[in-house]
Amino acid sequence: MRAVVFNRELSYQPNYPAPNPAEGECLVQVRLAGICATDLHLTRGYMDFSGVLGHEMVGTVLEGPTDWTGKRVVCEINHVCGQCKLCQSGLSNHCKNRTVMGIAGRDGCFADLVTVNQKNLHLVPDSVSDEEAVFVEPLAAAYQVLAQSFIDSRTSVSVVGAGRLGLLVAQVLATKGCNLTVVGRNPNKLLLCEKKGVQAIHVDELVARQDRDVVVECSGSPAGMKVAMELVRPRGTIILKSTCADNEALDLAPIVVNEISVVGSRCGPFGEALNALAREAIEVRSMISKTFPIEDAIKAFDAAADPRNIKTLLSMG
Amino acid sequence: MRAVVFNRELSYQPNYPAPNPAEGECLVQVRLAGICATDLHLTRGYMDFSGVLGHEMVGTVLEGPTDWTGKRVVCEINHVCGQCKLCQSGLSNHCKNRTVMGIAGRDGCFADLVTVNQKNLHLVPDSVSDEEAVFVEPLAAAYQVLAQSFIDSRTSVSVVGAGRLGLLVAQVLATKGCNLTVVGRNPNKLLLCEKKGVQAIHVDELVARQDRDVVVECSGSPAGMKVAMELVRPRGTIILKSTCADNEALDLAPIVVNEISVVGSRCGPFGEALNALAREAIEVRSMISKTFPIEDAIKAFDAAADPRNIKTLLSMG
Repeated sequence: MRAVVFNRELSYQPNYPAPNPAEGECLVQVRLAGICATDLHLTRGYMDFSGVLGHEMVGTVLEGPTDWTGKRVVCEINHVCGQCKLCQSGLSNHCKNRTVMGIAGRDGCFADLVTVNQKNLHLVPDSVSDEEAVFVEPLAAAYQVLAQSFIDSRTSVSVVGAGRLGLLVAQVLATKGCNLTVVGRNPNKLLLCEKKGVQAIHVDELVARQDRDVVVECSGSPAGMKVAMELVRPRGTIILKSTCADNEALDLAPIVVNEISVVGSRCGPFGEALNALAREAIEVRSMISKTFPIEDAIKAFDAAADPRNIKTLLSMG
Repeated sequence: MRAVVFNRELSYQPNYPAPNPAEGECLVQVRLAGICATDLHLTRGYMDFSGVLGHEMVGTVLEGPTDWTGKRVVCEINHVCGQCKLCQSGLSNHCKNRTVMGIAGRDGCFADLVTVNQKNLHLVPDSVSDEEAVFVEPLAAAYQVLAQSFIDSRTSVSVVGAGRLGLLVAQVLATKGCNLTVVGRNPNKLLLCEKKGVQAIHVDELVARQDRDVVVECSGSPAGMKVAMELVRPRGTIILKSTCADNEALDLAPIVVNEISVVGSRCGPFGEALNALAREAIEVRSMISKTFPIEDAIKAFDAAADPRNIKTLLSMG
């Protein structure tokens, strides 16, 4: 099968061995997949991953229980044991024995075929297109912000970073009617925010106001964390969404002095994301910058790394 | 008056001008003062402070309202406006207009005399000695941990750092009957923990278990934060107590991946600290390593920087 493989370097491989589903797993034919900042970090050595990349996808079940075969699905990425203490205490996303699709110990979806635990599948409603469904994984991660902090119409919130994830988080927050601003760098992305009715501010025009109740850090850079600390009010909350491959010296004293809470936030509820797309509460198509056939994966990765682009997709069609 | 002054360099000054209390302020004669890690950081440029150092003290009111004069007192360090939005929303410790005794915009207590807002004074009960009362400020900061996280007998907690602050935090946590360990480096300090009935572990013997509900970072070093991230469980909490003058590259990815909450924690409730000393719930005298007359302040600062010592005091008597 065709596959995009990272093994010290990134390569497109036209004849990669097809996977065999283990017990409890389904074989899924990938239709469309999304490239995310984590994929870019993985190609710079994050997590020491090697194998088929990719964890954002929509596909069709080829092999599995009869009530699933032929169905269009999206897949949760954490494959968990279901038996450890963390799994049994409701924290299965943190299962110590987990593998993570295209990130840790398990091949990903930048390929024609991928194997996935049947329990990880979610049916995609007919009203949700492939181009929308491919956003379910990152949109679920955006919804996780609401699961980890209380945000309502009285909450002032800033999103730092107007990239792929920042724009999804901003849209999710906007559904709460909160006082919302997005801080970014790229004029086109800031314009997209404004089109969606969200106030956008260029980072160079920012004043260190320390008056926001909640700041969501989506920039993936240490500079973004610094901006977040300048925006959040004393006793406020910074939600840290993006892992960051580049370490840099970061002065944590403001966290102590201003008694800030920094809350790490990773994967989120697929159900909420699917539901939001089905009832058109979140619009994602305008975020698609380019779609490449899987054969052009190397070009697609370059495009995904270009800050002028928002979402870059890989098509297996 | 005698005073310990930092102005690009640390000096003992035998004839420093005595302060004049402004309206609402009292003049306090300092009896005994404690040197804290923040003082050491200030002498390395933290906060760009210049003036009389010192914020941990017990003294006698010389000038002020008649019901206060002659009384033995401890003093809250944040001098606030009482009128800004933060003051009026119960966050006066974060007042934007605040000055902080010996830390920001206000002379401190390493001197014969210091001026303090009358509202910042707390009466010291007769049963609490000077040697105990001088610990009220850092002990209050230790109690702040309980104000910012829920800890009971079912909570597993580790304290990273067995220094001045770590030993106070450990004692405060022990009163909750939680499953408690202290991680440190200095054998004498670890022995003191064990004497107080708290399990102590040398940092080199530590296993990265990621199973603690709460970790309190009191080491004041970026290495301590790294240890904290290795100890805390997924979705657990790191309470960050110590500001750290030395920035170092710190990989924040574990915070996101394990969805950890990092909660900054600064000053705390003086009432709780005084009460705990009065009813002998917390023992502090065994933490005093050395007491220097104020004239020997430079030696005292050297002793405070020596990791073999715990608490170093300055006596004005």
